Amino acid sequence: MSTLDTRIAQGKGDQPADKVLRGGRIFDLMTGSLLDGDVAICGDTIVGIMDHYDGHEIIDVSGLILVPGFIDTHLHIESSLVTPFEFDRCVTPRGVTTAICDPHEIANVIGTAGVRYFQQASAHTLMDIKVQLSSCVPSTHMETAGATLDAADIAGLMGHPSGLGLAEFMNYPGVIHRDPACMDKLALFEGGHIDGHCPLLSGKDLNAYVAAGIRTEHEATSAPEALEKLRKGMRVLIREGSVSKDLHALQPLLTDTTSPYMCLCTDDRNPLDIGEHGHLDYMIRELIRLGTSPLAAYRAASLSAAEAFGLKDRGQIAPGKRADIVAIRTLEACDAQVVLAGGVVVNDQSFAARSQIDPVGRGSVKAPTVTATDFRHRGNQTATDVIGIREGQILTDHLHEDIAIIDGDKRPDLTRDLIRIAVIERHGKNGNIATGFVRGFGLQAGAIASTVCHDHHNIACVGASYDDMALAANRLGEIEGGFVVVRDGAILAELPLPVAGLMSLDPFETVRDTLETLRSAAASLGVTLEEPFLQLAFLALPVIPALKITDRGMVDVTKFEIIP
Amino acid sequence: MSTLDTRIAQGKGDQPADKVLRGGRIFDLMTGSLLDGDVAICGDTIVGIMDHYDGHEIIDVSGLILVPGFIDTHLHIESSLVTPFEFDRCVTPRGVTTAICDPHEIANVIGTAGVRYFQQASAHTLMDIKVQLSSCVPSTHMETAGATLDAADIAGLMGHPSGLGLAEFMNYPGVIHRDPACMDKLALFEGGHIDGHCPLLSGKDLNAYVAAGIRTEHEATSAPEALEKLRKGMRVLIREGSVSKDLHALQPLLTDTTSPYMCLCTDDRNPLDIGEHGHLDYMIRELIRLGTSPLAAYRAASLSAAEAFGLKDRGQIAPGKRADIVAIRTLEACDAQVVLAGGVVVNDQSFAARSQIDPVGRGSVKAPTVTATDFRHRGNQTATDVIGIREGQILTDHLHEDIAIIDGDKRPDLTRDLIRIAVIERHGKNGNIATGFVRGFGLQAGAIASTVCHDHHNIACVGASYDDMALAANRLGEIEGGFVVVRDGAILAELPLPVAGLMSLDPFETVRDTLETLRSAAASLGVTLEEPFLQLAFLALPVIPALKITDRGMVDVTKFEIIP
Repeated sequence: MSTLDTRIAQGKGDQPADKVLRGGRIFDLMTGSLLDGDVAICGDTIVGIMDHYDGHEIIDVSGLILVPGFIDTHLHIESSLVTPFEFDRCVTPRGVTTAICDPHEIANVIGTAGVRYFQQASAHTLMDIKVQLSSCVPSTHMETAGATLDAADIAGLMGHPSGLGLAEFMNYPGVIHRDPACMDKLALFEGGHIDGHCPLLSGKDLNAYVAAGIRTEHEATSAPEALEKLRKGMRVLIREGSVSKDLHALQPLLTDTTSPYMCLCTDDRNPLDIGEHGHLDYMIRELIRLGTSPLAAYRAASLSAAEAFGLKDRGQIAPGKRADIVAIRTLEACDAQVVLAGGVVVNDQSFAARSQIDPVGRGSVKAPTVTATDFRHRGNQTATDVIGIREGQILTDHLHEDIAIIDGDKRPDLTRDLIRIAVIERHGKNGNIATGFVRGFGLQAGAIASTVCHDHHNIACVGASYDDMALAANRLGEIEGGFVVVRDGAILAELPLPVAGLMSLDPFETVRDTLETLRSAAASLGVTLEEPFLQLAFLALPVIPALKITDRGMVDVTKFEIIP
Repeated sequence: MSTLDTRIAQGKGDQPADKVLRGGRIFDLMTGSLLDGDVAICGDTIVGIMDHYDGHEIIDVSGLILVPGFIDTHLHIESSLVTPFEFDRCVTPRGVTTAICDPHEIANVIGTAGVRYFQQASAHTLMDIKVQLSSCVPSTHMETAGATLDAADIAGLMGHPSGLGLAEFMNYPGVIHRDPACMDKLALFEGGHIDGHCPLLSGKDLNAYVAAGIRTEHEATSAPEALEKLRKGMRVLIREGSVSKDLHALQPLLTDTTSPYMCLCTDDRNPLDIGEHGHLDYMIRELIRLGTSPLAAYRAASLSAAEAFGLKDRGQIAPGKRADIVAIRTLEACDAQVVLAGGVVVNDQSFAARSQIDPVGRGSVKAPTVTATDFRHRGNQTATDVIGIREGQILTDHLHEDIAIIDGDKRPDLTRDLIRIAVIERHGKNGNIATGFVRGFGLQAGAIASTVCHDHHNIACVGASYDDMALAANRLGEIEGGFVVVRDGAILAELPLPVAGLMSLDPFETVRDTLETLRSAAASLGVTLEEPFLQLAFLALPVIPALKITDRGMVDVTKFEIIP
């Protein structure tokens, strides 16, 4: 008997279902009602609801409410700092059963091999990982990445069952100015799905960007910005990452009326944050706490996401849909008690039963050994561009400060919170070192450094001491990348990330604990930011306004050029 | 410069747009607001809104409201009684810019050639005709059709750009009982789009039907029925045909909350009805008059339809979407003043500029010549099954009456409104003639006959006089099919439908006028039904409960068998 036959037979009750969830009530995303009855499951598919079913396996969900599995509509799994297998183990138990990822972090380090790693991994995780094809590797021409994906490379990655389309098209200037390389990539997916990324874009520029066929957007940081994007046909993905936190700003726009066209995403979220607050489950709780109706919140978390990405096989607890089901105690608590992903009960045994594939991207840190003098900041005028951090955002301010030149060097001025920032090329290409100033860390001594440095993932380093900066940067070469905190010539804390300098080989619990140690170590330097490594990582991303730094220098994002 | 380049350049305002709609306000389907600004169009695509644009052609829509072109989510164009080209000319000026059709009427007469006719025609109409592939030709095993489409035939029709999926799967008993031929057809579209048709199906039977992967349903005739279908994952298409009228029953379910998941369709609607009341424009007006919010009504008519069928290129007046735009005076009036279909202004000139293709299916009426005695109804017991018409519905009642046997014939009893109904096979296959009784016409003399007789399209005939019935049926052979009204040996009115016995070669205005003549002629026989030919046509469709008749006999639809 074929799978189709079996599904029909079990749905009709002619045969016992493979699994039956009994005693729960379905939260109906059509009307917001609670529906009584069993949920019958055949293989990976729901085949019956609102009725009594016999089954080979009865799963008791008495007193619980059943909601469709959550869909993270845009994220970089690398930002969880663990492999996709550990990400799965970390997040699926919270009810996230689909993750639409863009593997552009690893692609910037090792190219197509990194994308294929995620494609292959997607076949083995309990959650369904969809792998969008990275459109902007590197993100711009103003940085040195470890690899480049051109249109031909992307074409070679198309056709994998995990693929839905082209990942966030971050080079929005390239789109609206019709850069030929951008046009080639867009043309590959014409009529198909293309994800967007266009912070603060508005008016005719936004019209042009959307007219290129781009369907989603997750960079809106205010309700008016998001509303313009919705009205212009984009599906708005509310993002709450570890550093980019837009939920509070966009929450007022998420209503029963707009919820069919809005989704949720995390973009970049680390295990510490996931452990302390949660993942999409946190977003749902927080939205409801802020006054969003449960109907709107759970729609955005599942059904609307499925619709936005054409995933007609999920988003509702209904016959014919994937058996992605989360059993919670209350809609407000969103506290997953039982999770099914594609019909599999999520627990230690099912995680252990997964086959895994070997990690890739080992030995990827190929930076020059640096010394304190490499961090001097040359210049012949005191007027200085300074990156102004906005805590909890990846947008920065472009500040202007006068900084004295002493012995040919503009030194950190801790009294004004002006510390050194540097980016060191680490892919073995050219050994570039760029230096500049940043305000907002509060750092008073030592240095911190990281190979997680969007999106080129060179070494980013900030510090008050050039010696400590050199020690931190050089240490990253020894541990194959990661995070380091240094003070007075000593390493206070570190997290090795040997998979492309981005992901740990350890369980997520270990990574989470080490991140706490790192946070404390950073705080001991005077750092006041809650997520210093994530904030640092985004200071290097030249597709987010206003002022950033890459290995090639300070970047005026508004002008889309390196400051001479 | 590529089309993509040009769209971006015009959207950004770097080049004048091809066309600009100026002075109107967009009805925003995200929030229900009215948005100021021009609409810039490049070729067939909207490239800019909410801004000022220069253009090569400025179209004045001052004071008008702009809404997205309407999408008829399920219809048989044949039921308009005109060719797709005349249907286009009849309906597109009312704002219907997409029609998702199932060509199963013509397919029942001439098979794949009929489907290909619609596929080819779709390339030439102003509206965008999407041609679903007919799943149930014939609708059941209990009728003689002119052709059969098996899974291999359907497979051979796949891949045409007009196709979205498999058309309404009417053989719902075949699905839930896992008939192998049904399974083969479903398997062809597994994971793709399959339209449903399952009147009154509920509970586990409905679960089984939906679990087969069926996504839409347009046969719900009550709000509770529709709500169960919505909750079970189907998109509900509210139907208002010329005979099947479900709008009033389902309207209470269409709210701002449910509208993203509900659509509109006409299924079967003739030019008389279109002329008198309208098409989807009528449905929108009527919904709003009944209290539906304009937001919900216009969403159902466009955006929700686009989403239900994965037509991501339309449904909103927004950049990157097809320039399907209807300019109306008020949301309540829904009175199209200007219509653009794929960027083309709909008017006499653009209709005249279409290239057309030759009609198919000529000379399709191959019925035996009949005489009065062919209409005698034999039987040896007075207990008689009688079809009870419900005006304005295609559901019928299964009535039981005692009718005397006189000279071996059960004769019409006009005092009890029990008249003769007969179906005559007309595809040259076997010359079957079946007879029975029907109540509800009110006919007191003469006969009416038709080759539009769902879905097998044999000759259906009702009458008080066997002689008149024979004359009417034989006349259909002479005029290549159509409608005939006869009394006392004279033809009172007729409409030839020489394209497969289903469609006229005349302009829709001529057909509309002739239908009025036919209606008057039928009324002169005492017929009290507003749409006697359409009601008659559906008495032969054995997939709609409860009692029907085909060329093989009376059909108990509930039992899905011919009454012995």
